[in-house]
Amino acid sequence: MQKTAICPGTYDPITEGHKDIIRRSTKMFKKVIVAISVNTRKKPFYSIEQRIDFVTRALYRLKNIEILPFEGLLIDFAKKSNAEVIIKGLRAISDFENEFQMSQINKKLNPHIETIFLTTHPKYAYLSSSAVKEVAEFGGCISGLVPKEIEKDIVDSFK
Amino acid sequence: MQKTAICPGTYDPITEGHKDIIRRSTKMFKKVIVAISVNTRKKPFYSIEQRIDFVTRALYRLKNIEILPFEGLLIDFAKKSNAEVIIKGLRAISDFENEFQMSQINKKLNPHIETIFLTTHPKYAYLSSSAVKEVAEFGGCISGLVPKEIEKDIVDSFK
Amino acid sequence: MQKTAICPGTYDPITEGHKDIIRRSTKMFKKVIVAISVNTRKKPFYSIEQRIDFVTRALYRLKNIEILPFEGLLIDFAKKSNAEVIIKGLRAISDFENEFQMSQINKKLNPHIETIFLTTHPKYAYLSSSAVKEVAEFGGCISGLVPKEIEKDIVDSFK
Amino acid sequence: MQKTAICPGTYDPITEGHKDIIRRSTKMFKKVIVAISVNTRKKPFYSIEQRIDFVTRALYRLKNIEILPFEGLLIDFAKKSNAEVIIKGLRAISDFENEFQMSQINKKLNPHIETIFLTTHPKYAYLSSSAVKEVAEFGGCISGLVPKEIEKDIVDSFK
Amino acid sequence: MQKTAICPGTYDPITEGHKDIIRRSTKMFKKVIVAISVNTRKKPFYSIEQRIDFVTRALYRLKNIEILPFEGLLIDFAKKSNAEVIIKGLRAISDFENEFQMSQINKKLNPHIETIFLTTHPKYAYLSSSAVKEVAEFGGCISGLVPKEIEKDIVDSFK
Amino acid sequence: MQKTAICPGTYDPITEGHKDIIRRSTKMFKKVIVAISVNTRKKPFYSIEQRIDFVTRALYRLKNIEILPFEGLLIDFAKKSNAEVIIKGLRAISDFENEFQMSQINKKLNPHIETIFLTTHPKYAYLSSSAVKEVAEFGGCISGLVPKEIEKDIVDSFK
Repeated sequence: MQKTAICPGTYDPITEGHKDIIRRSTKMFKKVIVAISVNTRKKPFYSIEQRIDFVTRALYRLKNIEILPFEGLLIDFAKKSNAEVIIKGLRAISDFENEFQMSQINKKLNPHIETIFLTTHPKYAYLSSSAVKEVAEFGGCISGLVPKEIEKDIVDSFK
Repeated sequence: MQKTAICPGTYDPITEGHKDIIRRSTKMFKKVIVAISVNTRKKPFYSIEQRIDFVTRALYRLKNIEILPFEGLLIDFAKKSNAEVIIKGLRAISDFENEFQMSQINKKLNPHIETIFLTTHPKYAYLSSSAVKEVAEFGGCISGLVPKEIEKDIVDSFK
Repeated sequence: MQKTAICPGTYDPITEGHKDIIRRSTKMFKKVIVAISVNTRKKPFYSIEQRIDFVTRALYRLKNIEILPFEGLLIDFAKKSNAEVIIKGLRAISDFENEFQMSQINKKLNPHIETIFLTTHPKYAYLSSSAVKEVAEFGGCISGLVPKEIEKDIVDSFK
Repeated sequence: MQKTAICPGTYDPITEGHKDIIRRSTKMFKKVIVAISVNTRKKPFYSIEQRIDFVTRALYRLKNIEILPFEGLLIDFAKKSNAEVIIKGLRAISDFENEFQMSQINKKLNPHIETIFLTTHPKYAYLSSSAVKEVAEFGGCISGLVPKEIEKDIVDSFK
Repeated sequence: MQKTAICPGTYDPITEGHKDIIRRSTKMFKKVIVAISVNTRKKPFYSIEQRIDFVTRALYRLKNIEILPFEGLLIDFAKKSNAEVIIKGLRAISDFENEFQMSQINKKLNPHIETIFLTTHPKYAYLSSSAVKEVAEFGGCISGLVPKEIEKDIVDSFK
Repeated sequence: MQKTAICPGTYDPITEGHKDIIRRSTKMFKKVIVAISVNTRKKPFYSIEQRIDFVTRALYRLKNIEILPFEGLLIDFAKKSNAEVIIKGLRAISDFENEFQMSQINKKLNPHIETIFLTTHPKYAYLSSSAVKEVAEFGGCISGLVPKEIEKDIVDSFK
């Protein structure tokens, strides 16, 4: 029962919604690996180094986490990390479908690793990394959208 | 990290889909309470005693479970049982929406209890207790739809 | 390739949407059985005799159809009728989910009978038998919602 | 441009979600009619008199509203009341589909009356009259779910 | 109550579906600003000048509209234009989700500006600017898909 | 009743899910054209020649099929090929919406050609060509995801 769980994502950048999911995960599992995707097709705006730095500063209060970049198949990374559970946040229907398909294919690749879903807190239901960047790009206020530890960095990166 | 989880439901009757979710839950949590709703608005076809009996026989191989009827608010039952996690299976979009709403209201009633979702195995994606009863009512074959330990009972109950 | 298809439903009463699906089905298959559910849980407003009469009059122009009541499992009725295809109209997401689940369970019961879906013509996308009855009950105009051959009967049945 | 809008519903009972939609509607339209359905198929728990009383007390601060019961087709009531807009709140996908179908049929019945949709505030996204009643029935806390003016009445009605 | 509303979009090009939403909006609000997005991530096929020209010609009959390009955050443009309402057309579930998220983030950025939704007329439910371009690209008939004032221009632009 | 049907797609590459839909289609129609899109906006990973070769080898057992590349509008290709039915597989809600819109626009372009939908077998519900490529790219096992006749080719193409 000493489970390790993984919260994978691009975190480009980490939002308050991500933080909420990770914080709740740390209450359910002994250790939570925040796995930041390096070779994502989404072509991140921030470098892997910046994204790791943002996540590290945003989550400095959480004790039982480890922050790691990952490449290749998530399911292989999970196995290598001795994680038995993958945790994903659900905001909306289209999230649900994509995540459902990914969880099924991961299950086929490795039936010993389970994917579980948490629903995003309603106050973050509208929130996404791309929404943050779009607001910041045009000088809108991102307070409350991203952890306050990184808010100034995000604003500055669009100046 | 010695968590107790609850798998609530009407189980009218327990299906192979339910069993799959419960079995996977027992691998993630130290103890799993299978909580069978007594006072459901769904007006169960089987009595609470029959439903408990079916669940008990269908799950006899699982060690770390406890099978209990419950009345009143699930969230109160969870607290009383020292469970910190509620587990729900997701089959489809409409499942997702109902379960999402229930998880949010439960979160408001007690923020310390988390709801997590597992996706149903694709081969049980079409399966529901009411489908089982409809097939059985008209003499269709329910083999593979319900645990084999209770298959004959379900068939007989419609004779 | 001399296929028989079934268009099952409660037809309580038949609408212009139903008629559109059936008419298109008759162009794809040699014979189309319009199967009217007798023992439906929906508790029809019109008797099975009335529903058969409405369907018969509404479809009098279609040559390659047969109108039959059915009881029990649709899949058994399909087999007995030598039909190899079940045809369902799709209006909306919730339709899709219910129909998907039913098609999967029917496939399990009899893998030789295929379910296919046609999308409802957009101009009937809002239309359902219950909407027709609700409009008629309060004296609204149902012209264009049901086949004109039965329009007066529907109106009269709410007087 | 001196439009009258209608916010129809069963209001069994009025929730904070309803109140949010109505309040926002009063800012967009000169007059808002809160239309409480008398002859609903939903078999309300509270009588029409109780529901009117709850709505009246919950909305006492709003100036440009009128609270009225209605029977028959909404679209006829709207016309009789000289309302040109129907306003509905959207919480979820299934809401969207039902409301979409109703708006299309209303449009067919009277093309001069427009239906518009507002999205529910995320903090009320999980909220419904039936959830309120279920929580209250089992002694859960409904504070923040219903307007505080009627909270005690709802609690008392389940004692 | 002398409201100004905004109908924002890329209009690449304007379709009969867009025109239907704008026309209905002009009946509900005193003034409607058709706001054409300049700096869209969608990389429009037509230049902003062409899109403005198409919209202008397609809507020449509507009196209470103003056609304007906009850059930056929609919510800032709305405020600067003294618009108090944003109007969006809904065709489908995925529309609904995207629009819902945008409306929530806009609400956070400026709670005084309301987003309302109109459902697309069923006969345009299948219609989108990209479908128009795909059909035109391969020489299909786009009559009835775009306003007739611009039909020839669209056809010519793919020759 | 001697119908010809078309199963169109990018087939980049053909999966077990595609094969399941095509095989079932051949049982319903006299002849099935597997139409492989040449000029797709999806920018296929495999060349049209490779995709035709993969499909040909994967389907060698099916007798009443013809494998053809196509350019331009599907509906024009269908007419030229004397096909009267287009067949599409449905996996999920977002599939449903896209396919629904395409079927409606095709219906407008040529009302004589019908689009029908088959639901994907649950065991392939999670499967897509892009999932196959993503798994293969990182050395995951694709056995059971693609027809075994082409499995080695797919694996080799990522070495």
